Amino acid sequence: MNGNAGQTLWVKAKGIIPGGNMLLSKRSEMFLPGYWPNYFSSAKGINVTDLDGRTFKDFSIMGIGTNPLGYGRQEVDDAVLSTVAKGNMSSLNCPEEVYLAEELIRIHPWAEMARFARTGGEANAIAIRIARAASGKSGIAVCGYHGWHDWYLASNLTDNANLDGHLLPGLEPSGVPKELAGSISTFVYNDYVALEKIVSNNPDLGVIKMEVARNSDPAPGFLEAVRELATANGIVLIFDECTSGFRETFGGIHKKYGVEPDMAVFGKALGNGYAITGVIGTRAVMESAQSTFISSTFWSERIGPSAALRVLEVMEREQTWERLSALGNYLRDGWKSVGEDAGVDISISGIPAISSFSVGSPASGLKYKTLITQEMLLRGYLATPLVFMSTAHDEAEIDCYLNHLRDIFELIARCEKCELVVDELLRGEVCHSGFKRLN
Amino acid sequence: MNGNAGQTLWVKAKGIIPGGNMLLSKRSEMFLPGYWPNYFSSAKGINVTDLDGRTFKDFSIMGIGTNPLGYGRQEVDDAVLSTVAKGNMSSLNCPEEVYLAEELIRIHPWAEMARFARTGGEANAIAIRIARAASGKSGIAVCGYHGWHDWYLASNLTDNANLDGHLLPGLEPSGVPKELAGSISTFVYNDYVALEKIVSNNPDLGVIKMEVARNSDPAPGFLEAVRELATANGIVLIFDECTSGFRETFGGIHKKYGVEPDMAVFGKALGNGYAITGVIGTRAVMESAQSTFISSTFWSERIGPSAALRVLEVMEREQTWERLSALGNYLRDGWKSVGEDAGVDISISGIPAISSFSVGSPASGLKYKTLITQEMLLRGYLATPLVFMSTAHDEAEIDCYLNHLRDIFELIARCEKCELVVDELLRGEVCHSGFKRLN
Repeated sequence: MNGNAGQTLWVKAKGIIPGGNMLLSKRSEMFLPGYWPNYFSSAKGINVTDLDGRTFKDFSIMGIGTNPLGYGRQEVDDAVLSTVAKGNMSSLNCPEEVYLAEELIRIHPWAEMARFARTGGEANAIAIRIARAASGKSGIAVCGYHGWHDWYLASNLTDNANLDGHLLPGLEPSGVPKELAGSISTFVYNDYVALEKIVSNNPDLGVIKMEVARNSDPAPGFLEAVRELATANGIVLIFDECTSGFRETFGGIHKKYGVEPDMAVFGKALGNGYAITGVIGTRAVMESAQSTFISSTFWSERIGPSAALRVLEVMEREQTWERLSALGNYLRDGWKSVGEDAGVDISISGIPAISSFSVGSPASGLKYKTLITQEMLLRGYLATPLVFMSTAHDEAEIDCYLNHLRDIFELIARCEKCELVVDELLRGEVCHSGFKRLN
Repeated sequence: MNGNAGQTLWVKAKGIIPGGNMLLSKRSEMFLPGYWPNYFSSAKGINVTDLDGRTFKDFSIMGIGTNPLGYGRQEVDDAVLSTVAKGNMSSLNCPEEVYLAEELIRIHPWAEMARFARTGGEANAIAIRIARAASGKSGIAVCGYHGWHDWYLASNLTDNANLDGHLLPGLEPSGVPKELAGSISTFVYNDYVALEKIVSNNPDLGVIKMEVARNSDPAPGFLEAVRELATANGIVLIFDECTSGFRETFGGIHKKYGVEPDMAVFGKALGNGYAITGVIGTRAVMESAQSTFISSTFWSERIGPSAALRVLEVMEREQTWERLSALGNYLRDGWKSVGEDAGVDISISGIPAISSFSVGSPASGLKYKTLITQEMLLRGYLATPLVFMSTAHDEAEIDCYLNHLRDIFELIARCEKCELVVDELLRGEVCHSGFKRLN
């Protein structure tokens, strides 16, 4: 693990960028403090090359879910290259934004209108603005992760624990205006009774926003009941599909469950590595955007919608959501078998295309996670217990990965049997479990 | 003006995108209702080609200020093409974000840290979050235009006229949580006494945010007094340089005036048509970002910082801000001379690189504006009375443009003398002056 130019640059970065980078999920300390490669020079397929020229196979977050077609998928890149050649920006609009709106509406027949942004956080903020305008009410009930904006972090103004289980434990909402305290309530996934209570206790509640499914499936009738509750109370129901979209269906995962929201938010997968996010909704709700000011210069750039149009074309042709799920299930079966062979208990969660496993006790879990990342890095892998599948993965690659993982599970088994001490196997610090101040 | 595929697509767009597009400033109705080309197929230098293959020279908003080096500047595009070839995204970070932070800090020696985003609205929201976290207070005093987010539009919760002169007249803050009423106060540019009063009446005020200069120069001592007021009261002073940056200096226009903020926001010009925006600030203030959650997936994409690094290289080598100002002054001299020759009074405002003129009375001004755009379009120009200069413009192009403009000023002169009626010269409706619901 010598010659880590990425660690040197990371130390510099922490001196001139608060937190070191733009995204908590890509912090060095979230993976392997002191040894994570941190920066890439190139990425193609599932291969990522770092600043020292070392190439790793990505069995981790795949851009935190941005690249379901793999890195540098040629057809998508070709669309972007053609856009750059024609011009990314002008005083006129790009026609691709209209074509993309048409596509997302075609894919989701309940939706009639669309707006686009360039990050998931702002797409979520747009959806909230429109929903509040449509309902005429400020109050929100929320479940899941929806970005960094004030409307959402305001959850923790009344109690720092409100976003535990949705975003991060104990997050202090520093810099979020205290005036928003009480404007938003969180509810636990699948706890319909709690949501119903929030709604009945809060006459100013106009919006319910949630992820459709993340760590577990919806309980029978849960999504249907939420839909009915929203309809009965004139509440705008928003499904945030930034993470779940295009992983199990061609579009939102809500298509699988047959429950339709009033609005849905998409991001991550939509551009296969190029920045494009969006909101779709019914005409009745979306037209409320016309009573408020929602406008930004770079939402009119052309790479985003051009990439997304090509991505949708590839996805539809290849039925990629089927492939992602099949690969995810193959990976899960492999994890189970590796765990059983080593005699190590693991628990698996997530949808197949976004699978994760945990191993060990609360005390040892983070240490084993760090050990896995450390040892797999030595074997040429970016590996974490959370793996986003891409169509650039395949069964043979998964088999190779599992063979290496098997070695490390054997180490873990010996730790569990007290033959080895995990702390002695770690070359550096244990990875962080969440948000911490970096020095 | 036959065969306007752009108008056909615009009609479709308004049916599936509320407001028709992503940016108020690029709405058809803001220019020439019914006849504006609306959409581009390609753009290079100052030439913009529409969906019908008609090519126009851009003497208008140049992407609303995104392209000071002209459209499709080859060196910048080459950096982007190389980025696409290497890969735009991976599970690791891109080193270019660190290099860009270094550059912006080098250019602004008072600043020590940077964060990046992809749109100006979110960069402004990041700056506000950090400033509120640093000051520990919610209250904001604001002057100028700073995007679409709740923190800013909350200005109009107490009075729909508060953002008149800053954003748009009479904007209803629909969908902005009413809880934020009173959290923000607006002040008029150059009115130091009013700002001082806001500060002394509001012990919870922790942030002053303003554009450094827009339509007029700062009055002698104004910026210095604002700086002193902020320092004396422990208030974080933010200069929004999204529009003014890199037009008169290599960096923020505040360098010209010798007044340093605690934070500055950049956008538009920074990527020459590619989406990249950012916040710089002192370490003392910026480190407060570590006490709050500010994170977004697509802030880690690579095209933005790669483009910006190349843009800064070109700007510094060519001293482009000097050229933009020289061209702007040449244009203003031309406008004056065309106006004088025709006997039409015009008034000119803005900094040279972002110049605008107005002609006619409040009653006739919008009609003349529409007439100019209509007639210049027939002559092969995208032309509005607000012109952003680029280094792809030159004196010869400005002369040609002025020769055409001369014809239209003669029409206006005849209207003013009641020899012609402007309404009869217009083929369609008068352009909108601001935000209106579109059908």
